Amino acid sequence: MQKIQIERTTAPKAKPADESKLGFGKIFTDHMYVMEYNPEQGWHDPKIMPYQPIVLDPSAMVFHYGQEMFEGMKAYKCADGRIRLFRPNKNIERANNSNRRLCIPEIPADDFLNAIKTLVAVDADWIPSRPGTSLYIRPFVIATDPFLGVRPSNTYKFIIILSPVGAYYESGLDPVKIWIEDDYVRAVRGGIGEAKTGGNYVASLAAQVKAHDEGYSQVLWLDGVERKYIEEVGAMNIFFKINGTVVTPMLNGSILPGVTRASCIDLCKHWGLPVEERRISVDELVEAARTGALEECWGSGTAAVISPVGALRYENEVMQIKDGGIGEFSQKLYDTVTGIQTGKVEDTLGWTVEVTPLEK
Amino acid sequence: MQKIQIERTTAPKAKPADESKLGFGKIFTDHMYVMEYNPEQGWHDPKIMPYQPIVLDPSAMVFHYGQEMFEGMKAYKCADGRIRLFRPNKNIERANNSNRRLCIPEIPADDFLNAIKTLVAVDADWIPSRPGTSLYIRPFVIATDPFLGVRPSNTYKFIIILSPVGAYYESGLDPVKIWIEDDYVRAVRGGIGEAKTGGNYVASLAAQVKAHDEGYSQVLWLDGVERKYIEEVGAMNIFFKINGTVVTPMLNGSILPGVTRASCIDLCKHWGLPVEERRISVDELVEAARTGALEECWGSGTAAVISPVGALRYENEVMQIKDGGIGEFSQKLYDTVTGIQTGKVEDTLGWTVEVTPLEK
Ligand SMILES: Cc1ncc(COP(=O)(O)O)c(C=O)c1O
Ligand SMILES: Cc1ncc(COP(=O)(O)O)c(C=O)c1O
Repeated sequence: MQKIQIERTTAPKAKPADESKLGFGKIFTDHMYVMEYNPEQGWHDPKIMPYQPIVLDPSAMVFHYGQEMFEGMKAYKCADGRIRLFRPNKNIERANNSNRRLCIPEIPADDFLNAIKTLVAVDADWIPSRPGTSLYIRPFVIATDPFLGVRPSNTYKFIIILSPVGAYYESGLDPVKIWIEDDYVRAVRGGIGEAKTGGNYVASLAAQVKAHDEGYSQVLWLDGVERKYIEEVGAMNIFFKINGTVVTPMLNGSILPGVTRASCIDLCKHWGLPVEERRISVDELVEAARTGALEECWGSGTAAVISPVGALRYENEVMQIKDGGIGEFSQKLYDTVTGIQTGKVEDTLGWTVEVTPLEK
Repeated sequence: MQKIQIERTTAPKAKPADESKLGFGKIFTDHMYVMEYNPEQGWHDPKIMPYQPIVLDPSAMVFHYGQEMFEGMKAYKCADGRIRLFRPNKNIERANNSNRRLCIPEIPADDFLNAIKTLVAVDADWIPSRPGTSLYIRPFVIATDPFLGVRPSNTYKFIIILSPVGAYYESGLDPVKIWIEDDYVRAVRGGIGEAKTGGNYVASLAAQVKAHDEGYSQVLWLDGVERKYIEEVGAMNIFFKINGTVVTPMLNGSILPGVTRASCIDLCKHWGLPVEERRISVDELVEAARTGALEECWGSGTAAVISPVGALRYENEVMQIKDGGIGEFSQKLYDTVTGIQTGKVEDTLGWTVEVTPLEK
């Protein structure tokens, strides 16, 4: 494992005064982590330095050919005063799966975890403590060769930045309304859908704007081949409870394998609920909604953890779920996952990793 | 039309001494064009300035969510001493089509053309004159909001850089070998395939690496739905001459509408050849190759203009075309298009736009 050089800022920024107004992804901490790659040295020279702009040649490949990968996870300041990460190794594994698909060199897992732990430790004072708040961690890689032409870059930067983020739900879970999109497509098997990379998100914007205009907060994607099978939401995986069974789309290559998704599946099984990972057609869903077999629906993702879904719209049909209210398992999963993350529920599954603040 | 502020460099770089060694996309000129966008002012403050790095917050959206658009075209220093652009308005129109799909604000066409003409005029001394060389023009837009979260950015930079590029073929046309890919997918209808944006290119890298390893220089993509219909090559559109008819895949939403493609179609029609834009299955192609009906195959794109295809491989079948040589229409199209571009063939179709060098 490589030793990280630490250069501390001499001009610390003011920390946000009001933790109820943090929002998401707008405020950044005092430091960032940077490690460089070139073919001769591989990943080398890891540094923590004052948060500062990135300076790149205008021909840097990331601006032209989209060779970029990112991850998203959180650190929590717990009631017991400890700092916990939630299953960081799952994100690291996923990052390297994305890297392989995108022809980006893999990052050694131990350097990756050490980078996250050390940076969070350096900026530990930035982790908010108000209930529901956390420190969002954004590792990303960008291709930096100053070259126009389509081929994998030879040089890269791996960067981690941190953002204190507010409670997604200020006053308890709040069901969302979701638009099932049957025109635009996000990803297709054989493509890059299962990699966490910019191209999938830019592809989603037009449908998201359309859904917002119609009063829906998020888009639920259908598969790109038949536009018939449920895939995932903009930044969440999706679960249904149908006739007592928890059902979620199988990992088919075009959806992101969410860490929260995996955790929901594990917990549901642990509770003795039948869980099926399989193809779910939108017709099956509409039918289940009509007959009342669709008992619950929720999204899973790092930002909101669990989002109960109150309504789904497909073409002209609006499916109300739980009369727009919160389902029993949405609430139970939310309480359990956030409980483990914040140290309120015992972590019997070994999902959390502790961070020890650094001496100054 | 907005007035462009021009700040000239005080430290001009040395121009490449040997025009036979330019390569592609490695050398950049003395100046660049930058125009900024924000919701209050729209596109504003266009500037030509010394070529210099871009400085962005690490949270700039382009690094994370792939909201970026680019174009590619060339300026030619002609034998008659004039500087010509080839159908720049087609690129500008395509850029704004891409922008719309990517939720990037459109760029006024007159400002766009003026930007290209003025920048090329400022750096006119950089246009090489050796046969086959040209000045590659790379306009691009990047999303610059310092924000983590999936939504269209509010702010953007529109930048143009220039690169003197070498002859693609130093000694006459040279047929390429192409790999038909049936596992990886580049784009699918409903997606972003017809937009010129990074996400499509990063998606193509893994297959390109595989094809190179097998000794093929480029990948020919199949459609994402049935993996059965011909789409396009990595950075070219594709044409076949089958039984005397020129056939090329129709614009279906998942392939890039090439400017060279449109020009090939126009010229072939002009010459009285029957042209069909339609779906072409890979099975039809294999069959035409087997029976000898496949008379010619070429790729069309700004970089190489016309690339004769000497061999196509699909699964275990290698189709030799013209015994690996150059077809009559590949050569004729190459000569005509490059002739018009360089002022050697009369531009009866009004395709070229002249640039007048600026006084210093
Ligand atoms: C497209 C997409 N799907 C699913 C998820 C959920 O993944 P995770 O639970 O790891 O946050 C995310 C967000 O991170 C996402 O961007
Ligand atoms: C994917 C793709 N298809 C086709 C083309 C050819 O388009 P044009 O003839 O406008 O250069 C290009 C290159 O520019 C391309 O990148």
